[in-house]
Amino acid sequence: MDAAPLTDLSRLCIHTITTKPWNIEEAAKNYSANGVKGITVWRDALSGRNIRNTGNLLRQHGLTVVSLCRGGFFARKSLTERQAAIDDNRRAIGEAFELGTKLIILVCGSDPSQSLEESRKQIRDGIEEILPDAESAGVLLAVEPLHPMYADTRSAIITLAQANDMTEALDSPWVGVAVDVYHVWWDPGLEKEITRCGKNRKLLAFHVSDWKSPTIDLLNDRGIMGEGCIPLRKIRSSVEAAGFTGFIEVEIFSNEYWKQDQSAFLRNIITSYKTCV
Amino acid sequence: MDAAPLTDLSRLCIHTITTKPWNIEEAAKNYSANGVKGITVWRDALSGRNIRNTGNLLRQHGLTVVSLCRGGFFARKSLTERQAAIDDNRRAIGEAFELGTKLIILVCGSDPSQSLEESRKQIRDGIEEILPDAESAGVLLAVEPLHPMYADTRSAIITLAQANDMTEALDSPWVGVAVDVYHVWWDPGLEKEITRCGKNRKLLAFHVSDWKSPTIDLLNDRGIMGEGCIPLRKIRSSVEAAGFTGFIEVEIFSNEYWKQDQSAFLRNIITSYKTCV
Repeated sequence: MDAAPLTDLSRLCIHTITTKPWNIEEAAKNYSANGVKGITVWRDALSGRNIRNTGNLLRQHGLTVVSLCRGGFFARKSLTERQAAIDDNRRAIGEAFELGTKLIILVCGSDPSQSLEESRKQIRDGIEEILPDAESAGVLLAVEPLHPMYADTRSAIITLAQANDMTEALDSPWVGVAVDVYHVWWDPGLEKEITRCGKNRKLLAFHVSDWKSPTIDLLNDRGIMGEGCIPLRKIRSSVEAAGFTGFIEVEIFSNEYWKQDQSAFLRNIITSYKTCV
Repeated sequence: MDAAPLTDLSRLCIHTITTKPWNIEEAAKNYSANGVKGITVWRDALSGRNIRNTGNLLRQHGLTVVSLCRGGFFARKSLTERQAAIDDNRRAIGEAFELGTKLIILVCGSDPSQSLEESRKQIRDGIEEILPDAESAGVLLAVEPLHPMYADTRSAIITLAQANDMTEALDSPWVGVAVDVYHVWWDPGLEKEITRCGKNRKLLAFHVSDWKSPTIDLLNDRGIMGEGCIPLRKIRSSVEAAGFTGFIEVEIFSNEYWKQDQSAFLRNIITSYKTCV
């Protein structure tokens, strides 16, 4: 049975990149004024700022800092580049700690000059290497499976099954999974793998948007919830049946929406959140 | 162990759409002059022509007419549109018969206003409805799983597992599967499902191209074999280990290559076929 509609905004989180034209101070002010309760911070939004102060500012606006986006990109053919990725992930963990969030989303990476299997092995090695840092900072790491159209350069982890495999293999209390409907909606194994993820107590984050028809850009043409074909209510129902009670995070990359008035876009997101998620 | 490189062109087939700027007569002449032995005909290439005469012309050039592209698009919410799709597939079977080819490739369709499960049910019903026509024309139907980025409108069958499920459910000697590396290369279940398809004796067609990084268009930015990240030799080895000995069909949609000199493009394809497939 499908979950009931969301009648308030107590679980609504928005990613700063969703309203990219706003800087983080504008985003915080506008999210808060519209009743949004959570914010996920993209690292570019912190550029040039004191991270601790920014975290405090967000909380002063009544926002929970749900996660930091993003770490990852562990898969590189070159050892030097793999080491650089590890260093960057350590910086991300430090930033998450300063910001006062308990979660980093990992886009795990893929290198088109090697096999997906090799990239996955490097991802596992990379995550293992930063586990002590995550533990000492008290920051969880969420492996996010990405849509197969990003398998070449962004993520060799392209199904929720593979993300579950990874967390089971790593077997660490500091590693879990982020489920983003845009990446996994097509997967015939989705419901089963959401259940498995929940049983493992690894379901750390839930991201929503929609798949538009037609989609004209591989990266920046996501839709607002309800304007596409993703069965959002059904997937949220599965995620909640698996025990997830956390924030529902709106993550929309869209050249089209970034051109429009962001206040109207935000109101549109809030309406769609209540009617379509 | 990987298969040996292809040392001659006896199994090389090219899809007319690969060299879209050429009409079918130019394509036939140029393919033949360059030693290509097979041609797969896209239906638009037959527009305004006597199909039987065109088939004869292709054979006079020494070309085997490997298949007709494409039937399908069975999944529609509207019954009227589903019936129109059935009618169109019957026309396609008639065209294949006239052309003298024994195979039609099915891009099965998907309707974003309904669930993928419902679309798959309609696909199965649609194929069942045209089976008597296929049988009386002596034309095989190949279900082609498409990349998940086409799940909204082009195909609710997005994994080879689902294509195998479909052929097993239909259980007809007139239905099999087409494996296109562009659509399935990312799939962790690929090797297992190729083996299953071979055991079922359902592996009817094998299409090659490559996945470029970056890919800048969802539809028309395929690469020539070798310029992307698809493990072509590995997949061909699996396909041949599963018993496939048929034509290897080059199917490249590319705004970039369609702008270039098609003779040079064809020579590039032939070189890449020998070194990278």
